[in-house]
Amino acid sequence: MTDWDVTSTACPSRVIFSRIGDRWTMFIVLALSHGTLRFGELRERVGHVTPKVLTETLRALEADGLVGRESFPDSPPRVEYSLTPLGRSLLEPIAAMRTWAEAHVPEVLASRERAGV
Amino acid sequence: MTDWDVTSTACPSRVIFSRIGDRWTMFIVLALSHGTLRFGELRERVGHVTPKVLTETLRALEADGLVGRESFPDSPPRVEYSLTPLGRSLLEPIAAMRTWAEAHVPEVLASRERAGV
Repeated sequence: MTDWDVTSTACPSRVIFSRIGDRWTMFIVLALSHGTLRFGELRERVGHVTPKVLTETLRALEADGLVGRESFPDSPPRVEYSLTPLGRSLLEPIAAMRTWAEAHVPEVLASRERAGV
Repeated sequence: MTDWDVTSTACPSRVIFSRIGDRWTMFIVLALSHGTLRFGELRERVGHVTPKVLTETLRALEADGLVGRESFPDSPPRVEYSLTPLGRSLLEPIAAMRTWAEAHVPEVLASRERAGV
């Protein structure tokens, strides 16, 4: 049981819910689910994301303790990103969202066609 | 089993995943989970959303077949929003995201404090 409530605008869980309810957060967590990636690999895996948005989202996820960042003194410097145990725990709810999206493609597409969009 | 894959940039499920992985979609679906609401009620329930963003998100959710919109010829005209059965089916994965957010508040806040944000 918890006293936190995402529907209350004063509750800190709302900010966290907004952070995880963000397409880039969800795509990044999915992309890192198979292991550590460098920035360029992550960008490619996430797809259609600008370096700016990817950098900002990664910083926020790092501050929130969901993503770990390790830099190596290579030349050029190498930076690797991975899910922390907390980030890994987010995989299950995100997988549920993903399953829903993949399961309901025909219904949503049919509805869009009816709506003429 | 399905052939759709949200991590493929060419897959229509990716667009749907992006739509449902949107904080406003998640807040709107949660707000409508208890029943039909008028625009003003919905806006109040969702909280901290501009009328423009709420209108745009509702239109997209309507086109996707997740939200139904019914207008009544009252004066002033009354418009009511409710979840369709498809929208209702999204409650379960969104509830899983919500549960995660509410369960991990202390860890995320502690991490933010360490990060100095």
